[in-house]
Amino acid sequence: MNNRRSSPPSAAKTIVPSASPWRASRERLHDREVKRDAVIRAAAREFNRKGYHNTSLDDIAARLEVTKPTVYYYVTSKEQLLFECFVAGVEQIRAAFRDVRELSVPARERLNAVLRHYGEAVASEFGWCMVRAEDQDLSPAMSRHIKSLKSEIDHGIRRLIREGVQDGSIQPCDPKMTAFALAGALNWIAHWYREDRSLTGAQIAEAFVAIFEGGLRPRGSVSRLVRAPLPRRRARGAMAR
Amino acid sequence: MNNRRSSPPSAAKTIVPSASPWRASRERLHDREVKRDAVIRAAAREFNRKGYHNTSLDDIAARLEVTKPTVYYYVTSKEQLLFECFVAGVEQIRAAFRDVRELSVPARERLNAVLRHYGEAVASEFGWCMVRAEDQDLSPAMSRHIKSLKSEIDHGIRRLIREGVQDGSIQPCDPKMTAFALAGALNWIAHWYREDRSLTGAQIAEAFVAIFEGGLRPRGSVSRLVRAPLPRRRARGAMAR
Repeated sequence: MNNRRSSPPSAAKTIVPSASPWRASRERLHDREVKRDAVIRAAAREFNRKGYHNTSLDDIAARLEVTKPTVYYYVTSKEQLLFECFVAGVEQIRAAFRDVRELSVPARERLNAVLRHYGEAVASEFGWCMVRAEDQDLSPAMSRHIKSLKSEIDHGIRRLIREGVQDGSIQPCDPKMTAFALAGALNWIAHWYREDRSLTGAQIAEAFVAIFEGGLRPRGSVSRLVRAPLPRRRARGAMAR
Repeated sequence: MNNRRSSPPSAAKTIVPSASPWRASRERLHDREVKRDAVIRAAAREFNRKGYHNTSLDDIAARLEVTKPTVYYYVTSKEQLLFECFVAGVEQIRAAFRDVRELSVPARERLNAVLRHYGEAVASEFGWCMVRAEDQDLSPAMSRHIKSLKSEIDHGIRRLIREGVQDGSIQPCDPKMTAFALAGALNWIAHWYREDRSLTGAQIAEAFVAIFEGGLRPRGSVSRLVRAPLPRRRARGAMAR
């Protein structure tokens, strides 16, 4: 943005002559999209840093060095901003589902590709909003919308697991519990990644996929699912200390 | 408790004669502990239902059909109640660590036993407090205490993973990322278990351990960690929709 500002307008005109009003219109539209994205990203960063309820539109405007009416030009409310942050993160996962749909590789590889994008999305600035938007006090309509998008992702993962069990690339398992375990591990990244950034989002996603794929039990070892003969703690013991 | 109330006091005296004032003292102490546990459990259920900030000590007293001063007899503040709920859940995991310490079974089996208790604890009424206590506005001292207990659990899991890699019962892996993936999957139970109680906590824990152990890739298949040849989405695409 600074670069664009610093180049003289006449020079820009020489390089990219505006041959048609349609093109200029497209450019304006693109400019608006870029600015709207900047507003959403700024909101995501403030929500990350201070939490949704502690963040005001003034904070977001201040971060962008604009006025609050400028922010209102792009979104109607703070609630909408949270929703847009949620969607921006979730859209990365939905796009991954679309990308893998036509690939002729085993379902496990398609699932892994989706999980990588999922992990990267949760490690992005939108991660907090993706996993915590539902906890905020949102309107019933917005809560429903968020729930339905989450449900779409959940069912997409279950579907890939079922396809993997069918094509033999995934160990027979309970698709629902497996989807919950995978999504839980990935969602939890949003809780610890703010404090521990020793790896990039892509590295974390890759490490998690390797863990999900391989499992803890060494490959080639005798298959055992023996339980350790442990005394089971019961309710009374739960509180004793 | 209703049973105890309905049996006549004289009958109880006949069965268990109070032979010494020390025994009576122990009984009073036990009685106090039982009541304190009831206060903590009632708090956990209210926090689950309404969230920490929306729950008052009056709500907790009302649930127990006692007065607020009675609640104050057992805890000093709402903050302490949250902490006690957190500790009650976490203590189930710490107890599991103690139980497995002396067992002469491979580390993976000891880890699995801990993970089972972990899963059950998160599915218990203390689950929400265990995974969300840190997000509340707590005093710095209490936050530090909670963080240090969480860190103890985290490091306990990493240690069992390292021991498992050493004794050959766990596939060589990054102990930190693996611990984060396992704990994340288990912690997330607190988010969905309130709405979906189709399985018991023990069943979920068992299902998760099977998933962690076995991994998605079928046993006996050729070891492949080939990545699907997917276009990687970048920042621009992240927001486009």
